Amino acid sequence: MSVEESLKPLFSAITELKPSFIDRLSQAVSIPSVSSDESLRPKVFEMAEFLKSQLITLGAEDIQMRDLGIQPPPVVDPKLQLPPIVLARFGQDPAKKTILVYGHYDVQPASIEDGWATEPFTLVQKDDKLIGRGSTDDKGPVIGWLNSIEAHRKVGLELPVNLVCCFEGMEESGSLGLEELVAQESDKYFKGVDAVCISDNYWLGTKKPVLTYGLRGCNYYQITVSGANADLHSGVFGGIIHEPMTDLFKVMSQLVDVKGNILIPGVNEMVAPVTAAEDKLYDPIEFSAEELSQAAGADTGYFDDKKDILQHRWRFPSLSLHGIEGAFSGAGAKTVIPAKVVGKFSIRTVPDMDSDKLDQFVFDFVKAKFAELGTKNKLNVELIHGGAYWVSDPFNDNFTAAANATKLVWGVDPDLTREGGSIPITLTFEQELKTGVVLLPMGRGDDGAHSINEKLDVPNYIEGVKTLSAYLHYYAAGAK
Amino acid sequence: MSVEESLKPLFSAITELKPSFIDRLSQAVSIPSVSSDESLRPKVFEMAEFLKSQLITLGAEDIQMRDLGIQPPPVVDPKLQLPPIVLARFGQDPAKKTILVYGHYDVQPASIEDGWATEPFTLVQKDDKLIGRGSTDDKGPVIGWLNSIEAHRKVGLELPVNLVCCFEGMEESGSLGLEELVAQESDKYFKGVDAVCISDNYWLGTKKPVLTYGLRGCNYYQITVSGANADLHSGVFGGIIHEPMTDLFKVMSQLVDVKGNILIPGVNEMVAPVTAAEDKLYDPIEFSAEELSQAAGADTGYFDDKKDILQHRWRFPSLSLHGIEGAFSGAGAKTVIPAKVVGKFSIRTVPDMDSDKLDQFVFDFVKAKFAELGTKNKLNVELIHGGAYWVSDPFNDNFTAAANATKLVWGVDPDLTREGGSIPITLTFEQELKTGVVLLPMGRGDDGAHSINEKLDVPNYIEGVKTLSAYLHYYAAGAK
Repeated sequence: MSVEESLKPLFSAITELKPSFIDRLSQAVSIPSVSSDESLRPKVFEMAEFLKSQLITLGAEDIQMRDLGIQPPPVVDPKLQLPPIVLARFGQDPAKKTILVYGHYDVQPASIEDGWATEPFTLVQKDDKLIGRGSTDDKGPVIGWLNSIEAHRKVGLELPVNLVCCFEGMEESGSLGLEELVAQESDKYFKGVDAVCISDNYWLGTKKPVLTYGLRGCNYYQITVSGANADLHSGVFGGIIHEPMTDLFKVMSQLVDVKGNILIPGVNEMVAPVTAAEDKLYDPIEFSAEELSQAAGADTGYFDDKKDILQHRWRFPSLSLHGIEGAFSGAGAKTVIPAKVVGKFSIRTVPDMDSDKLDQFVFDFVKAKFAELGTKNKLNVELIHGGAYWVSDPFNDNFTAAANATKLVWGVDPDLTREGGSIPITLTFEQELKTGVVLLPMGRGDDGAHSINEKLDVPNYIEGVKTLSAYLHYYAAGAK
Repeated sequence: MSVEESLKPLFSAITELKPSFIDRLSQAVSIPSVSSDESLRPKVFEMAEFLKSQLITLGAEDIQMRDLGIQPPPVVDPKLQLPPIVLARFGQDPAKKTILVYGHYDVQPASIEDGWATEPFTLVQKDDKLIGRGSTDDKGPVIGWLNSIEAHRKVGLELPVNLVCCFEGMEESGSLGLEELVAQESDKYFKGVDAVCISDNYWLGTKKPVLTYGLRGCNYYQITVSGANADLHSGVFGGIIHEPMTDLFKVMSQLVDVKGNILIPGVNEMVAPVTAAEDKLYDPIEFSAEELSQAAGADTGYFDDKKDILQHRWRFPSLSLHGIEGAFSGAGAKTVIPAKVVGKFSIRTVPDMDSDKLDQFVFDFVKAKFAELGTKNKLNVELIHGGAYWVSDPFNDNFTAAANATKLVWGVDPDLTREGGSIPITLTFEQELKTGVVLLPMGRGDDGAHSINEKLDVPNYIEGVKTLSAYLHYYAAGAK
């Protein structure tokens, strides 16, 4: 029996189970598991318990609520417990391949005062949209995996792979403890994992499904310029001392040009050239400059051409100036000469940029430009956070299974996309488990993941469950 | 009888009354009349009542507690009453000259947690220092005038002038309502005022008394650069849109060079040349580059030469970059592309800079530099606060009386100084009352007016009362 034939009764069951699936998501959304709000931490634990009870009902084995201990500072409550990572497995058949699915059960903050049209922690169906915090990020996909298992059980279809679930509760707050756990369990709980599937990003637009094979990295720097030992009054000291702000502006204004080109020597030279084959991947992607303007709410883009936009978003590095710590940042007028200012900027990284070399180029350039000033103030430049880029072969077995599943359900070949931002856990899974990761999104580009009125379209939810299910079957059958 | 002879018994009385004077200041300091702290507003009123009761005891006439109405927003309490301006007069003899003395009875915030060695609202005498919030700024000088009247009464010496007191309670919070009151009363309560004396600044250093004849003005600007309609994620949008921060840094970095020279064409050309006579005024002033380094807590000054330092602080304009509103300003890393950023800077002004012309030069330059960028973001540049410079003839009758008083008490000719900051009320008195103002400070340069452990040295307090008293007598007698 072909994969497609064996999936027919499963897909019918998924369609029939739609009310039950929406009800399950509704229960999940009703628990305000906001990981960044300490007062709501009990709700994050409640959400973990909800998943556990669902997993038990669905016949999961070896369910573990992995305690991550106490949350490190800064916290208000010094004894604040981290929510558990929920581990579970379905099947341990050595004859089957093993897929690890990752998702997170915590959500971003939300309150009606922010401008939501409906109560954010009540899932509301309006036309074909399921509106509520976490609907698309990331409760929809997490519940989607559970729905797939329910559908398999209903039609008496055996899961074609051993399934390992890894659901965390701190993704929106830095994934505290996750990396360590993945490393620890690589040859224990996660032993034998053949491939990883993460459903925690979005289609590029609203119409065409995508698979995502690359993420930019991010090196975040700060430049500290210090002068006096306390903030000074500009009336008394203006005109007679070297002002740290003046020096900082001189240096930071030389890092990038107004068209976004990085001006630090050596940086652009590290970028791998775009091959002809790679360039061709951008041809079928549905995207336009208008979509960018709509997303930004302004017509301030550098490029009109689709390929230029997408490649500069995914494939080339960028440098952004984020702000200054220590300067006046309020409304109105304050006549201060800040004594110590810390300028923040980051560089988005891509293949084949070497992170250490990049740091060195940045440090050398900043120091050289500062030295040229001839100021008496002091400089420090440092990397305060680094996350590597990730790129996968979009034609390996894992991606091919996901592509076949998408094609079967949606009737089109998915666009192969990257993202400009980073999902650090992707690289962690790949490195620690020595296997490939596919990013297989469920929601659309306009879902408003971290915004008000977050939603998941009903077709994305239900067809998404079919896609996730089909992916498992195609992977089990081997690439076609 | 010469002025000096008539002052002898008065000076003896002042010396004898020292314990009573310290007690009076102690009572004043014990009332935490912090104008910027709404919860302490009743204490500001209490301080006004304290002054009133003292004025009654000392025989003042026509005491008025001038109600200024409700404090305009931003305030927490929408019905917050402004503290009154306390007006009082001693004598209305048409044969005498009339001096208006101004001071303020509100103080800066202070709490032991800020690092005070003693309770800030308890006046503590340690060696020869009177330590407490307001001791030097400005309760010492305000109480100093009352002390002078007490001493006159004690020795039965008539005040040589009609004295008009104007004590406000909002100086540390923008002098709300004062300018309007001075304008209103110019030919009513303040009719016939011949000269104004303000004791609300400090000696340049710690050893030599000064008279102050000039203040720089301040034009405060903001540059707004706006792009997207909401903050964006640098992962998703970095490299494809014009970033307001990049544009703002490009423009703001071109306003001033690293040596403090203003780069806006036309600005420096408006500055009146320093005449040889004027330059000579700097010769006797006691000051050194070491004192500057000590005050700043760092050796980051532009100049080593005394005259260079003082003239660039008092006599030449300066431009300081204060900060950015709307950008990331916290600790740590935030990968935001701010959608709208507001850069703040100000220019300290001096004779003969025309404020309107200065604005035009700034606007033209900022717009031209922004246009050169070729960005798609939007610019706005505006003046958000302006205060004019002030300069007086340091050899007029008013200054001569103050100089003679200082010489008599301290045995040296006072240094003639300016200040880099502004005291807007100085110009208001001069313009509205059409008369001259002398700034006759009581405290020393290291008093720590807005800092922790604010103090007034006992000699400055007691000899200061003598100086203020002698000033009235010299002014009455006419310049010598």
